[in-house]
Amino acid sequence: MIKIALDAMGSDNSPSADVEGAVLAAREFDYDIVMVGDAGLIEKELDKYRPIPENISIHHAPEVISMHEQPVLSVRRKKQSSIVVLANLAKEKKVDAIVSAGNTGAMVCAATLKCRLLPGIERAGIGVLMPTLKGTVLMIDGGANIDAKPKHLLQYAIMGSAYSQYILNNRSPKIGLLNIGEEESKGTGFLKDAYGLLELSGLNFIGNIEGRDIFGGDCDVIVCDGLVGNVALKVSESTAHAIVEMLRRELKSSLLSKLAAILGKSAFYSLKRKMDYAEYGGAPLLGIDGICIICHGSSPSKAIKNAIRVAGEEVIKNVNQHIVEKVT
Amino acid sequence: MIKIALDAMGSDNSPSADVEGAVLAAREFDYDIVMVGDAGLIEKELDKYRPIPENISIHHAPEVISMHEQPVLSVRRKKQSSIVVLANLAKEKKVDAIVSAGNTGAMVCAATLKCRLLPGIERAGIGVLMPTLKGTVLMIDGGANIDAKPKHLLQYAIMGSAYSQYILNNRSPKIGLLNIGEEESKGTGFLKDAYGLLELSGLNFIGNIEGRDIFGGDCDVIVCDGLVGNVALKVSESTAHAIVEMLRRELKSSLLSKLAAILGKSAFYSLKRKMDYAEYGGAPLLGIDGICIICHGSSPSKAIKNAIRVAGEEVIKNVNQHIVEKVT
Repeated sequence: MIKIALDAMGSDNSPSADVEGAVLAAREFDYDIVMVGDAGLIEKELDKYRPIPENISIHHAPEVISMHEQPVLSVRRKKQSSIVVLANLAKEKKVDAIVSAGNTGAMVCAATLKCRLLPGIERAGIGVLMPTLKGTVLMIDGGANIDAKPKHLLQYAIMGSAYSQYILNNRSPKIGLLNIGEEESKGTGFLKDAYGLLELSGLNFIGNIEGRDIFGGDCDVIVCDGLVGNVALKVSESTAHAIVEMLRRELKSSLLSKLAAILGKSAFYSLKRKMDYAEYGGAPLLGIDGICIICHGSSPSKAIKNAIRVAGEEVIKNVNQHIVEKVT
Repeated sequence: MIKIALDAMGSDNSPSADVEGAVLAAREFDYDIVMVGDAGLIEKELDKYRPIPENISIHHAPEVISMHEQPVLSVRRKKQSSIVVLANLAKEKKVDAIVSAGNTGAMVCAATLKCRLLPGIERAGIGVLMPTLKGTVLMIDGGANIDAKPKHLLQYAIMGSAYSQYILNNRSPKIGLLNIGEEESKGTGFLKDAYGLLELSGLNFIGNIEGRDIFGGDCDVIVCDGLVGNVALKVSESTAHAIVEMLRRELKSSLLSKLAAILGKSAFYSLKRKMDYAEYGGAPLLGIDGICIICHGSSPSKAIKNAIRVAGEEVIKNVNQHIVEKVT
């Protein structure tokens, strides 16, 4: 049976959201789920979900790396932290995949250090899944590596293409380079060099795309460096949040609009569901020799459950093998 | 009377949207408006708006720089283009401000070359105005300069602070540096250096902010390099567009939700108005020795009119003088 380790101390509401997510996943999927963290705290949480599914177990890890700790230092110092223990389980192949909603930088660092990178890959990248008007787009890198070189962007494209093909079922994923304009001549030297590499890559590279094109859905994989990707991701999340909040305020402004809010409830709910990252579960950290899914710190139990689902899919579809075949 | 020159050949719907915007502005404001472009085409458009306001005139410019032309080359070659003629009018102080919805790169290039930069400023920056939950935030640079150095970000902060104080009436504008995380240690060497300069600047620098903080409105001026700013701007526009489109589709899905759409019409309209960049008019190109407002290519006449209004405000409030005082 596929074995997936979950950081029980990861999310902002840990361990309750994480443990609940694990229980939901254990009930729904045929995976062995190993919860990593403070055994006492986890047991206490688990007690709420009797009968506890048999495919859940606990792996004790007494330390926690908090959200604001410096990634490299904390990974080096806290060898008994849930994140480092998780990475070690993956390294030793004791589990097939790991999932964490904890400190992203620390998880990237631990996973890269312990599992090492796939042959031909020099930097791991976070693949962020975003809803568009025509389906789901994968943006890579969402913030694993902010000092990228052009060849890293090529590697992201290869990894993103494999993920898009085997997990999102796009036969020949269209790759776009996130830039300031569409013309080949646009952007910094870094971006022009990346463009050149992508053009020769044999991938289905469709050229530069702009920030405005992300949600059009004409592209399956968007390649960018981690700083730009991180800003793009967070801006899009916060724009969505601001619009929903503005709409909520407007709909409270009159009796008629309050009625509209009630009548439109299912439409609003359906929209919310489409935009909700919890549906996607988490972001794959691509490029490491292992499978690691990174979740939002604010993940509710549903997001944790879906991240475990996605981790299992990655194992089954053998994405890493496809990446290695494409890159070498 | 304040004299403002408008690129009549600028927008995607030129000259009709541009000319209509000029007519609307001429009727509403006490400005002399000079339309720059193909005189024959402008006259034909103007003919639709009889009686033509007396404060509108035409300055013939036979050439046009299209949206896809390379900025530096086109400015050098097309000396009779509306954009280059516009920049020359500003340089020779024949007008107090210029407005264009044309090729942004070409307008930045022409304005910088002809008008030169203010003393102490080494790069012009586009100041983008964005709605937030608490008012308006100015993000600089929206894409004038994608090879910024840390000191340019300091200059953007000074210019943005002056603009925010004198045009947006924030007494002590809060400045944030757009980064991948809040901690001082975050980001590339470039961003760390910029952080250090901002900390010593005497401005009201509140530290790093993340993409997710832009719309919270806790910051009055957001400083970033042109590539990141351009991506952030376009991602936020396209997220907003995608959400509105998704909501439109959802609201069509049932009879009840169709009714909700009708009852909520004024709320939806009010939201649309808040998010609509046409309300803001355009983005000031800050740092040049002159006043230049850059509009979206897709600007409707209302956006052109508002851009002319904003240009006039900048003249009246003497923003450039305040920038020079702060920077030197």
